[in-house]
Amino acid sequence: MTRYNVTIVGATGAVGQELIRILALREFPIKKITLLASKRSAGKKVESALGELTIEAFSIDKFENQDFVFFATNGDHAKEFAPHAAAKGAVVIDNSSAFRLDEDVPLVVPEVNPKAAFQHQGIIANPNCSTIQMVVALNPIHQYSRIKRIVVSTYQAVSGAGQEAITELMTQLKAVINNEPAQVEQFTKQIALNVIPHIDVFQENGYTKEEMKMVKESWKIFDDPDIKISANCVRVPVIRAHSEAINIETDSYVGEAKARALLEAAQDITVIDERENGGYPTPLEVSEKMDTYVGRIREDISCENGLALWCVADQLWKGAALNAVQIAELLVRGEQ
Amino acid sequence: MTRYNVTIVGATGAVGQELIRILALREFPIKKITLLASKRSAGKKVESALGELTIEAFSIDKFENQDFVFFATNGDHAKEFAPHAAAKGAVVIDNSSAFRLDEDVPLVVPEVNPKAAFQHQGIIANPNCSTIQMVVALNPIHQYSRIKRIVVSTYQAVSGAGQEAITELMTQLKAVINNEPAQVEQFTKQIALNVIPHIDVFQENGYTKEEMKMVKESWKIFDDPDIKISANCVRVPVIRAHSEAINIETDSYVGEAKARALLEAAQDITVIDERENGGYPTPLEVSEKMDTYVGRIREDISCENGLALWCVADQLWKGAALNAVQIAELLVRGEQ
Repeated sequence: MTRYNVTIVGATGAVGQELIRILALREFPIKKITLLASKRSAGKKVESALGELTIEAFSIDKFENQDFVFFATNGDHAKEFAPHAAAKGAVVIDNSSAFRLDEDVPLVVPEVNPKAAFQHQGIIANPNCSTIQMVVALNPIHQYSRIKRIVVSTYQAVSGAGQEAITELMTQLKAVINNEPAQVEQFTKQIALNVIPHIDVFQENGYTKEEMKMVKESWKIFDDPDIKISANCVRVPVIRAHSEAINIETDSYVGEAKARALLEAAQDITVIDERENGGYPTPLEVSEKMDTYVGRIREDISCENGLALWCVADQLWKGAALNAVQIAELLVRGEQ
Repeated sequence: MTRYNVTIVGATGAVGQELIRILALREFPIKKITLLASKRSAGKKVESALGELTIEAFSIDKFENQDFVFFATNGDHAKEFAPHAAAKGAVVIDNSSAFRLDEDVPLVVPEVNPKAAFQHQGIIANPNCSTIQMVVALNPIHQYSRIKRIVVSTYQAVSGAGQEAITELMTQLKAVINNEPAQVEQFTKQIALNVIPHIDVFQENGYTKEEMKMVKESWKIFDDPDIKISANCVRVPVIRAHSEAINIETDSYVGEAKARALLEAAQDITVIDERENGGYPTPLEVSEKMDTYVGRIREDISCENGLALWCVADQLWKGAALNAVQIAELLVRGEQ
């Protein structure tokens, strides 16, 4: 079996850490793994599922002889340095938003548009977390009858904002329980016992960048910019796994039974839809699961050919690290 | 000034307690207030904004010579006993779902359909909490250009499920912080650090009863059963105040500036809509506020003549006790 030299850039961050776990869990054929981070972390030993590893200081020299370089850094960093890794022959799989809408860069969700991955010119972009789980959940229906409109409202976990955001939520919860004032740093308002309808910066049209990512990235992944999409992105006090309430309209009638059958038959989707107490997925139980979970499947009574559903997935896994590793797996398996 | 004999049935519950506070805060012209609850609570003294009051055991004899009887009990109790109060000449304002869809009972939100209140035959129904704030927020737009479709996803506070639900959330949070297992009793799953897409029982069509309340009650309050409505009702770990992400389509173009102006001019609505960090309402800061708060007003890019907005209100106040007292105030002021 061919084995590959793999580098993770940003290995100490939330997504970097999950990349190590996912590479181990998926038994990715690694020859040598290199973990890069800032100089501050260099020399640090990490006990990981891949054994004890040592963090090395980031430099572009490290990209020599790499097969796959996973970028788990911010957009500015990826924009500057990912091309260096690609120039040295590695395939870059970038988790930031830097290249996602770049015409020359495929934006890939393996369950939806696997072929796009093979058109890369050295860089492949990993979509935004809230987009990935939505397109995974909707693709089986979209393949059966084209989706012409999507209205989605999200319930997004704090870990989407990084490790500090988790710490802030837990610190605030402790304060609130002890009747002490909660300190606000990572979010614009207290997130403990609250919800915040604002993720990423505001755009000219009143939507946030997170909301417009769901629009534009879905267009690109489905290769269908005529789909009408509106998103409401909201942060909730959940540690991990994003939830989405989705209403769609399809070109022709699908119906609830057919939609459920399509979703049940789909790869990497688990349907939990019992219409009784507990008969639906929630973020707590979907944390550290690889599948995208769907429940509450029903005909949307407010339009022709409409469906409503509830979708939950671990946004650090399927929404980030897992999807990135699946892209590498695709390339390893070779074109279908 | 005429003063009125007022009775609260279910005075020890979450809504009953808020009714006492709201009657005091609004300086409702009370001659005598009577607090009724189960025999278990009879004789209990309550320090309230109306002074020290004593809980009396519920019996239908207490309805003699009452002007207003607020029912804050469950639907079965209200169904059985509200007609007795009405028969004795009181106006019943019932917070349960028992009479809401009854053709002979007005379902009233004073900002929306005040005239309906005057058609009562002894009983007036107070709508469901999630319905009230939605119709308050949408009515100014609906009056300008008829709303033909509503898609709403809710972020509902635990206090909508009663005092025990608040206790359960806080107890679970303490357990989670101490790395202990969380006990689940009030909700179908752990609510701390989770969200649950299920409020009230499932219906034949796959929607929950809470979701269908938003549909059917809005039809009745707007007196327009042709409005297409789909709701996704979700419980979130927030103590108090419900939030709603709402997408609407109107008959003709309204536009964001006009929508904002209509909302800003409307009675009992506060618009917070700055498109910058913190420039939107969240449940934490809207708790114990009387207004319905609206933000994130923008044109819905996914349809013709569409608008999206975010609406937050204290569901124990505007969604229950306050709306009930406002109905009584309407009747006291007399027909407009």
